[in-house]
Amino acid sequence: MADIGFGVIGAGYMGKAYAIALSQVSTVYEMPHRAVKRVIATSDAAGARGRARDFGFERGTGDWRDLLAADDVQAVAIASPTFLHADMAVAALQAGKHVICEKPLGRTAREAAQMAKAAQASGRVTMTGFNYVKNPATQLAHQIIAGGDIGEVIHFSATHVEDYLMDPALPHDWRQVAAHVGRAGALGDIASHAINLAHFLVGPVAEVVGMRQTVHAQRPAGDGMAAVENDDQAQFLMRFASGVPGSIAASRIHAGRKMGLTYEVVGTRGTVRFDQERMAELQFYDAADRKGRQGFRTILAAPGHGDYGRFCIGAGHGFGYNDMIVVEMAEFIRAITEETPAWPDFAAAVHTAAVVDAVLASCDQGGWIDVKAIESEAWA
Amino acid sequence: MADIGFGVIGAGYMGKAYAIALSQVSTVYEMPHRAVKRVIATSDAAGARGRARDFGFERGTGDWRDLLAADDVQAVAIASPTFLHADMAVAALQAGKHVICEKPLGRTAREAAQMAKAAQASGRVTMTGFNYVKNPATQLAHQIIAGGDIGEVIHFSATHVEDYLMDPALPHDWRQVAAHVGRAGALGDIASHAINLAHFLVGPVAEVVGMRQTVHAQRPAGDGMAAVENDDQAQFLMRFASGVPGSIAASRIHAGRKMGLTYEVVGTRGTVRFDQERMAELQFYDAADRKGRQGFRTILAAPGHGDYGRFCIGAGHGFGYNDMIVVEMAEFIRAITEETPAWPDFAAAVHTAAVVDAVLASCDQGGWIDVKAIESEAWA
Amino acid sequence: MADIGFGVIGAGYMGKAYAIALSQVSTVYEMPHRAVKRVIATSDAAGARGRARDFGFERGTGDWRDLLAADDVQAVAIASPTFLHADMAVAALQAGKHVICEKPLGRTAREAAQMAKAAQASGRVTMTGFNYVKNPATQLAHQIIAGGDIGEVIHFSATHVEDYLMDPALPHDWRQVAAHVGRAGALGDIASHAINLAHFLVGPVAEVVGMRQTVHAQRPAGDGMAAVENDDQAQFLMRFASGVPGSIAASRIHAGRKMGLTYEVVGTRGTVRFDQERMAELQFYDAADRKGRQGFRTILAAPGHGDYGRFCIGAGHGFGYNDMIVVEMAEFIRAITEETPAWPDFAAAVHTAAVVDAVLASCDQGGWIDVKAIESEAWA
Amino acid sequence: MADIGFGVIGAGYMGKAYAIALSQVSTVYEMPHRAVKRVIATSDAAGARGRARDFGFERGTGDWRDLLAADDVQAVAIASPTFLHADMAVAALQAGKHVICEKPLGRTAREAAQMAKAAQASGRVTMTGFNYVKNPATQLAHQIIAGGDIGEVIHFSATHVEDYLMDPALPHDWRQVAAHVGRAGALGDIASHAINLAHFLVGPVAEVVGMRQTVHAQRPAGDGMAAVENDDQAQFLMRFASGVPGSIAASRIHAGRKMGLTYEVVGTRGTVRFDQERMAELQFYDAADRKGRQGFRTILAAPGHGDYGRFCIGAGHGFGYNDMIVVEMAEFIRAITEETPAWPDFAAAVHTAAVVDAVLASCDQGGWIDVKAIESEAWA
Repeated sequence: MADIGFGVIGAGYMGKAYAIALSQVSTVYEMPHRAVKRVIATSDAAGARGRARDFGFERGTGDWRDLLAADDVQAVAIASPTFLHADMAVAALQAGKHVICEKPLGRTAREAAQMAKAAQASGRVTMTGFNYVKNPATQLAHQIIAGGDIGEVIHFSATHVEDYLMDPALPHDWRQVAAHVGRAGALGDIASHAINLAHFLVGPVAEVVGMRQTVHAQRPAGDGMAAVENDDQAQFLMRFASGVPGSIAASRIHAGRKMGLTYEVVGTRGTVRFDQERMAELQFYDAADRKGRQGFRTILAAPGHGDYGRFCIGAGHGFGYNDMIVVEMAEFIRAITEETPAWPDFAAAVHTAAVVDAVLASCDQGGWIDVKAIESEAWA
Repeated sequence: MADIGFGVIGAGYMGKAYAIALSQVSTVYEMPHRAVKRVIATSDAAGARGRARDFGFERGTGDWRDLLAADDVQAVAIASPTFLHADMAVAALQAGKHVICEKPLGRTAREAAQMAKAAQASGRVTMTGFNYVKNPATQLAHQIIAGGDIGEVIHFSATHVEDYLMDPALPHDWRQVAAHVGRAGALGDIASHAINLAHFLVGPVAEVVGMRQTVHAQRPAGDGMAAVENDDQAQFLMRFASGVPGSIAASRIHAGRKMGLTYEVVGTRGTVRFDQERMAELQFYDAADRKGRQGFRTILAAPGHGDYGRFCIGAGHGFGYNDMIVVEMAEFIRAITEETPAWPDFAAAVHTAAVVDAVLASCDQGGWIDVKAIESEAWA
Repeated sequence: MADIGFGVIGAGYMGKAYAIALSQVSTVYEMPHRAVKRVIATSDAAGARGRARDFGFERGTGDWRDLLAADDVQAVAIASPTFLHADMAVAALQAGKHVICEKPLGRTAREAAQMAKAAQASGRVTMTGFNYVKNPATQLAHQIIAGGDIGEVIHFSATHVEDYLMDPALPHDWRQVAAHVGRAGALGDIASHAINLAHFLVGPVAEVVGMRQTVHAQRPAGDGMAAVENDDQAQFLMRFASGVPGSIAASRIHAGRKMGLTYEVVGTRGTVRFDQERMAELQFYDAADRKGRQGFRTILAAPGHGDYGRFCIGAGHGFGYNDMIVVEMAEFIRAITEETPAWPDFAAAVHTAAVVDAVLASCDQGGWIDVKAIESEAWA
Repeated sequence: MADIGFGVIGAGYMGKAYAIALSQVSTVYEMPHRAVKRVIATSDAAGARGRARDFGFERGTGDWRDLLAADDVQAVAIASPTFLHADMAVAALQAGKHVICEKPLGRTAREAAQMAKAAQASGRVTMTGFNYVKNPATQLAHQIIAGGDIGEVIHFSATHVEDYLMDPALPHDWRQVAAHVGRAGALGDIASHAINLAHFLVGPVAEVVGMRQTVHAQRPAGDGMAAVENDDQAQFLMRFASGVPGSIAASRIHAGRKMGLTYEVVGTRGTVRFDQERMAELQFYDAADRKGRQGFRTILAAPGHGDYGRFCIGAGHGFGYNDMIVVEMAEFIRAITEETPAWPDFAAAVHTAAVVDAVLASCDQGGWIDVKAIESEAWA
């Protein structure tokens, strides 16, 4: 099997995460081919060359279109600000590249759907960077739920709350500008992870009702203040297509929570619950346990849970943030080399974006909103 | 100071809890007067005499009106099914007794308001049995919030989820009959605790939107099945009068949770969170802690937190379910003997009932409902 | 059945705890007879009368020998400083009273054995106040171990660590005087709880090796400093008579732990572990659980675990410090009225004292010490 | 700066871990040079070539001496069974290679000292694979202790307990053969991690007293049974050179614990505690916190704690098992390229081995054993 040449666009937080993942994925998975770090693109050529050295790419470029033109690049990872995703991904697909793109896919469901349509037209593999879904603990949760071990699902709740913007003295940045990331703030940036998990664990969402708040309406910018154009926190109720009720809360100003991506799925015979701050654990209650001995058990991630065993054969020895990106990247590569499915692809991410748009509509209009209508319109 | 004679109506779960509390309250609080267990009333005279012996009352009666007629009874505790509360409480107040009544106060806000109006007319002390609010950990939470230690409150969330009815084979009982407890099931029985805590910690609620589900629509009754007339679980979003957003979820079929009364209050400078299953702990995040050393701290209940020190002078030595009832009873007695305030009195409980009614209306009508209008109407 | 009249000697921390327990025990257990608080004795008559009023005793006395002479007192609870236990308990037994005495029973194994011999001579019921053994979570641990659910026991470890003396500025008091409490400080005062639990859960101890430290060698006394005559912390290894290895650590200066009585019992097929700071939980690992779903489960105390159901019929609703004393008192009373066994009686407490003495000898001499020899000598 | 060529000996658990670490270390640390995976050696040539492909090495060899002879290899990682460490490490050092070797360094302190002497003679960089010491949470613990934030250290306790051999039906293997790994079983294999942490956090150990047990004395081997020649579990008390008391327990049959490397360090003004199963958290109690608000706080690993920020700039986002190996490898490489210190080097590992030997001697002889004497003798 030939090697897979990668280009990465962006060299910030996620750009580096992709570089780390590409460095090790073939070794972790003992792949017959190797992922090769060919090109990294940033906004200036000199900087890109420096990042290429730092991250071990063969070369750097100040123009992402150069990267797409490279013959030795088969796959592209997009780690740029949201408003650039659509142009880059569509161009990459049209250039015949496979594409993995950071979340949220686009600023709106419509933008995400444009990307998904380009993906369908290209026949190339796509994937959206909802990496938390790849955590072995969450893979185990999925297995428990899908296997019927908690009976019929009757309730879902999730949060994704962090506090990275809780300090009102933090400067205004592009993440607070609607033109760059959309009208949804915490709702788009991090609730989208929780929505994608809801989709993964329980299924598609049919309707929502929500509210959102911009607690710090202005932030320092230069000598003055600039308006924050999207929400600091948001909350919504939802009904899945299956009829199951649920709720999601998101915040970027939730004091004390650093990675508060949590979920609880209740069934008629048991419950699973999870907190990403203890990412290598799943809580599981099995009502079939012997009476008087029942209780939530803490299952430590171990071989047999998702891809944990690829990384370490010792149970409970630990699983980290970057490991999830490695799993994601392995799935993306296998989808290219073995034509196995990759999830969430761009089409799946349209659903997440439609839920976000539906919550925005509910906040505007004040009641329950049908997600299906918004999703259909996005694809139209 | 003279002793305070007590009559208790009902000898089930809460009737016994009141008897236990009355047995020890004067010793725990080293009161100059003693609470005296005079009469217990149940539905048959022989049974009542037996319970009087079991619980150490001076006498038992099969007619609660006898109890109200007794001159040596100054205070009455009502621990009967909900649909009896109003008649008993109003009669007790008219007989000049002070009254502590189990929650929910009435089947509707209107019924609760009738009781509250009788209380106002009587000039007697009343209290509603939302005992969880008396937990030292929650008293500490209130102190932290009210003292500004978490800054301005920006978010509230709570659950009260248990699994006592998760087994669909459990027989139909009066708690599933609308005429006995009202149309609200888990919403009325246990969400009401969470609503009362929201009221205590953050303030009154202005509007709600919600949904509810009866997962097990029928339950065994005799040889057949009977319809369950109220909800097994319910969820709602809310806005407090102060503008703070929040949410509450309640369930009586939430697998694995035995006393899942939890809350989290987020402020601009910190957060408190609590889980009644670890009832003697409060989690507190203080953003003012030194950088690199910040984290949620587990504060163990100790002297100085609410009335903990009355029970034990050793910090972290433990605080139990019945102890909360003792605190509640002490507050009720002090309100009688020293004319200090008791909270939640009947009037405060009307607000909780109005929130429940508003959620019911939202479930019926499908959108946001104004709580104030419902509460005003109840009092009208 | 006639009532049981109680006299309590001492009105401090444990004196009040006994008063609270006596107030409610008959109601909690729905006993056919009632425990009656007859007399409380303290060191001065006026104070005793005040405490009698505070705690609801019929009368107070400044002379504990008066209390023993009272015909309406059948049972005595001793809550005085350790050096007074032997005189009081022996006199009480000789006066025909049943006796429950605070721990540690005596200052040495020999003193404890003198008390135990007086108990045997009297034929009266005795009990030693190792109340933690009565916790429902620990009763469940015992049931799991004794029932073979964790297989054969292969390891035991425990701590009892608190921080009540961590501040070196705290004044010198009688607990640091060897003549009052013995040469063992944390070792005698709190390790004794852990030793008694070891005895209860695994069996008698055969040999020990240990060390101990007085970290704060002097404490303020009046205008100067006084020497601390016993240990602030101690640690020892042990072998049970069954051959099982174990260890215990104790401290009164362990920063942050308020009630750090913990134990873990490992078997060939499972493990139980416990922390008194979360006193209503037991952690249980069952190796028989399905592969891939194994983990420590948190069992919340519930009806069916020890006497929990006497206090509350709701699982996981909470169990507190004073509740343990109630269980203890109920067992003591039943032993009087129904001739059921009470444990730990004075004889059982001699074993705990012998382990303490053996650790002291090991600290003096430097190696392993045989407990049996010390215990035999104490009884001689 | 030139690249650093690596050879890895062994392709099992730790061999793969080293390969994963070498793949990403230069990217994670943005190093000016790159670690290059040149050669992997296993016991047969064909297998080695396969592993080279799996793990991305340039070539494989069936003879580790070939690897040492390679000019393009500057550094060697030894991940073979213990009894091979000394020969391989000494030969590698003599060949001028820098060496990182798996723990335990040798089968005895004497063997470890031979390796350390070879290291000193060579002038090359050495490191021993006690990777847990590189965890950011533990680096934070070290910073808190060394910075005086918990005052003067007064107590240390640790465990390293796992259950990988709890099933008596597991087959006999080389880890149970004294000639291969030494007389110390769990004591050598995993207590050594806890000892190294004690050394890192508190300092060298002066004396010990211990015991150990082989619970499953025989294990299946072919058609019969073979004797287990070392301990399944061990426990010991210790005194540090500073006088601080401590204890360590180790087990490979501790039901339910998968990575039970825990420690607690108590000081006069605070405490830190840690459990590797929640490897990205440190518990910290600061007695200087405001009264009534004190409690153990859960500090999530974040940038600023050890090298966490190299991997991810999001606080609390997670840190995994392999990440520790990356930190270790980075320190090893920096020691080569920048002549910064690497710890624990071979000399430091001799101390750990001497503590293990002292515990063995104590188990043989029954009392306290001086570690210094054993360590001096090993170096002699």
